[in-house]
Amino acid sequence: MTTTPFGLLSVLQPQRTIDELKELRALTGTADGAQRVCWTETWAQARAWLQAKLADLPVTVEIDEAGNLWATLRGESEQALLIGGHMDSVPNGGWLDGCLNVLGGLEVLRRSAAAGPPPVTVRLVDWADEEGARFGRSLFGSSAVTGTLNPAAVRDLTDRDGVKLVDAVAQFGVDLARANAAGRQLQHAAAYLELHIEQGPVLESMNLPLGVVLGTFGVERHAIRFTGQSAHAGSTPMHQRRDAFGAAAKLGLEIREIGKRNGGVCTVGSVVTKPGIVTAVVGQCDMTLDQRHLHAEGLARMLDEAKAASERIAAEENVDVEWQRIWQIEPILFDPALIKLADQAIQETCGVVHQLPSGPLHDAAEVARAGVPTVMLFVQSLRGLSHAKEEDTKEEHLLLCVQALDRLADKTMAWMVENSKS
Amino acid sequence: MTTTPFGLLSVLQPQRTIDELKELRALTGTADGAQRVCWTETWAQARAWLQAKLADLPVTVEIDEAGNLWATLRGESEQALLIGGHMDSVPNGGWLDGCLNVLGGLEVLRRSAAAGPPPVTVRLVDWADEEGARFGRSLFGSSAVTGTLNPAAVRDLTDRDGVKLVDAVAQFGVDLARANAAGRQLQHAAAYLELHIEQGPVLESMNLPLGVVLGTFGVERHAIRFTGQSAHAGSTPMHQRRDAFGAAAKLGLEIREIGKRNGGVCTVGSVVTKPGIVTAVVGQCDMTLDQRHLHAEGLARMLDEAKAASERIAAEENVDVEWQRIWQIEPILFDPALIKLADQAIQETCGVVHQLPSGPLHDAAEVARAGVPTVMLFVQSLRGLSHAKEEDTKEEHLLLCVQALDRLADKTMAWMVENSKS
Repeated sequence: MTTTPFGLLSVLQPQRTIDELKELRALTGTADGAQRVCWTETWAQARAWLQAKLADLPVTVEIDEAGNLWATLRGESEQALLIGGHMDSVPNGGWLDGCLNVLGGLEVLRRSAAAGPPPVTVRLVDWADEEGARFGRSLFGSSAVTGTLNPAAVRDLTDRDGVKLVDAVAQFGVDLARANAAGRQLQHAAAYLELHIEQGPVLESMNLPLGVVLGTFGVERHAIRFTGQSAHAGSTPMHQRRDAFGAAAKLGLEIREIGKRNGGVCTVGSVVTKPGIVTAVVGQCDMTLDQRHLHAEGLARMLDEAKAASERIAAEENVDVEWQRIWQIEPILFDPALIKLADQAIQETCGVVHQLPSGPLHDAAEVARAGVPTVMLFVQSLRGLSHAKEEDTKEEHLLLCVQALDRLADKTMAWMVENSKS
Repeated sequence: MTTTPFGLLSVLQPQRTIDELKELRALTGTADGAQRVCWTETWAQARAWLQAKLADLPVTVEIDEAGNLWATLRGESEQALLIGGHMDSVPNGGWLDGCLNVLGGLEVLRRSAAAGPPPVTVRLVDWADEEGARFGRSLFGSSAVTGTLNPAAVRDLTDRDGVKLVDAVAQFGVDLARANAAGRQLQHAAAYLELHIEQGPVLESMNLPLGVVLGTFGVERHAIRFTGQSAHAGSTPMHQRRDAFGAAAKLGLEIREIGKRNGGVCTVGSVVTKPGIVTAVVGQCDMTLDQRHLHAEGLARMLDEAKAASERIAAEENVDVEWQRIWQIEPILFDPALIKLADQAIQETCGVVHQLPSGPLHDAAEVARAGVPTVMLFVQSLRGLSHAKEEDTKEEHLLLCVQALDRLADKTMAWMVENSKS
C-alpha cells in the first residue's frame, strides 16, 4: 500500500462506495426515495456533491454541451477507457439506480489515480438525464454524444408544468441546439464499462451476486386495437357476439407463448375496454404489446407471430384488428472481447458468473451502437424492484460489484494497450 | 263496424300507433334521440300528451302515489287486465323503447272501449321511471307497486347536478315516503301484459317479427380482482412473472364457454389493468362479470363454475383472486297459461312464433314476482340496437305487434272470465 502525492491509498475501498451512496441518499432523498430528477435543483446538488469528491483527485472535470459531466484522469496514452453512470433518478426512485455506477466508477478512478498514471486515459462520465423522468426522453446525454439525439424533435417536449425541455436545460447551461457537439467526447474512446443493478429477478433467483450483460434487448412496442360490436349483455346470445375483449384475451395468452418459445419477453401491459361497463359486450379493446429480444431475427419473428395470431384471432372472433407502432429499437450486442474480460473479472471476484441480457435500456447501449466496445456488469437486485424506494441490493453484493468493476477496468486497460500494439 | 257513444271505431287501427309514435318523437325527441328522461319537463310533456289522448276515451285516469299513470276502463267485473309500458326513455334514447308498449296498449284500450264494456276491467299503466336514467334506480314505479322499493334506500340517490331523488320526485307530486301505498293498484289485478321491442338480435337473426317472452333472466353481477406482481417488462423473464392480466384473459375465455355450455349468457364488460403501462407486467387486473340465465339452477351452476375456474387459474398463474358481488336477481318466469295464449295470438297474427327469454329486466318482471300472471311480447329490433337513436323496428312489424297485443288481450280476458268461474 503506497501513498500518492494526493494522499490516496492505492487499494480499492469498496466500503467507501456504500458509505458515499448513503451520504448521497441522505442529501438528495426523502422518505419517498431518491429525488434526483434531472434538470432540477436536487440533481444539481447531487452533481455539486460529486464534483466536491472529484476535487480530491488528479482529474480534470468538465460539463459538456449536453450537460454530461466528465472527469478525466490522464494516462500514458490518449486512448480512453470510459466508465459511465448517471446521478439522475426517477422521482421517488431507489438509492442505487444510476449513482451506484458513478460512485463505483469514482472508486475505480481513485484507485487508478493512486497507482500513478494509468497506461491509458480513464474517464468517468456522469450522463445527463438517463431517466427522462421530467420530459419523457431518456438517454438524453448519451444520445447527444453518440449523435442519435435530434434536438428539433425534443425541444418542445414539456413537463407537467408546461415548461419546455429547451428552456429547462438552458437553466443548467445547456444550449440544446449545440448539444450534439458533445460528440467530440468519443474521440479517443476505446472501451466503455458500466455497472448497474439488474432491476430484474434473474440473478436473485439463481442466487448469484453478479452477471455479465450480453447486450440490451431490441424492443418492438405496439398499440393493438380490436373492434367488434358493443351489445347488451342480457339480450345478445353468446354466438351472436363480436366480443373485442375475447379477441384481446386470446391474443394476450398467445403472446405469452410467443415470448416463451422464442426466448424473448412479451408483455401486454395495458388493456382498455370500451364502453367498459358491466352490462355491455366489449365493442372495442385497446391493448399494448412490448416485445424484447436480444437478437434481431428473434425479435422480428416474435412480431410476425404476434401479427399473424392477431389476424387469425380477429377472423375467429369476427372482429377487426389494427396495429400501430409506438416505438422500436434494434438489439444492441456488447463487445465479445469485453464480455470475456467481464466474465473473468466476475469469476475472479465471486467464483461464479452468469451471462444475461438487459431488458431495460442503458446509456451503455447508446455508446455501444456508436461503435465503442462496451460491456456492462449487473449486480443482483432484491425482489427485482427498481424505480421505487424499495429498490435494494445486499451490501455484500455492493462490495463485490465495485471489486469486479475495478478488476474489469484493469483487464480492459491491458486489453486496450495490447490492441493498440497490433 | 259500429260507432260507440264516444265516436270510437270498434276495429283496431295499428297504423294509428305508428302515427302517434312519430307524433311523440316530434314532440319530445331531438336529433340525438328521445329525451323523455323521467322526472323532467320533457317527460311531463309526454305524459300530458298521453293524457290528452286518453281524454277521448271512457276511462278514468289517475296518477298514483309512486307517479304511475293508470287509465281504467271499467268492465263487467272488477277483475283487472293490466297492460303496461313506460313513457320515460334514456337520454338520447330510441323512439320505441317503452312508449310503443304504452301506445300499443292505448290502441287496445280504444278498441275495447269501442266494443262496449269489456267482460273485465282493462287498465293501461304508464310506469314511472322504468329506466332509472337520472338516479340509477330502474323500475321505480313498478317496484313501488309490488312493494320491493325501499324508499329509505333510494331517497338520497343524486343526479349529476347533486339533486336528490326524494326532491326530484316531489316536484312531480310524489311523496317518496308514501310511494309504496301505490300497492293498492294490484288489488284486482288478474293478468299483466306488456309489449316491448326485443332490444336484441334473436328475432332478426331468425327473420321473425314477434316472439313470446318466457321470463326475465336471473342475473349474477360480480367484480373480480386478480392480484399478481407488477414487474419490468424488459427485465422479468416469462417464467418469473405473476401476470394478473394473463389470469384475467384465461378466465375471460373460460367464462364464455361457461355461458355457452349452460345455455345462459356471460359477459366480461370491463377490464382495468394496473399499473396499466406498456413497460410493466400487469400487477392487478379488475374485471366485471355479468351472468344471466332463465333458470335459477343454471345461474347458480354458471356462477359456481366461474368461481372454480378463477381459483384454478389463480393457482396456475401464481396470483390471488377475490370476488365481490355487485348485484343479483333471481330469474322471473312468466305465466305458463299466458305464454300459451301469447303463442297462439302471435301464431294467428303472423303464422309463426318463437319463444325466448328476456335479457333486460322489464316492469313485467316486477309485476310477475308480485304474483300477477304475466306475459310479454317481443317485436323484432333492427340490428339489436336500443338505448340509442338508431333503435328501430320495421313498420310492418309494428303493425303486427299491435295486432298481436290486441288478440292476446282478448284471449286473456276470456281466460280471466273462465278462471273466475272455476
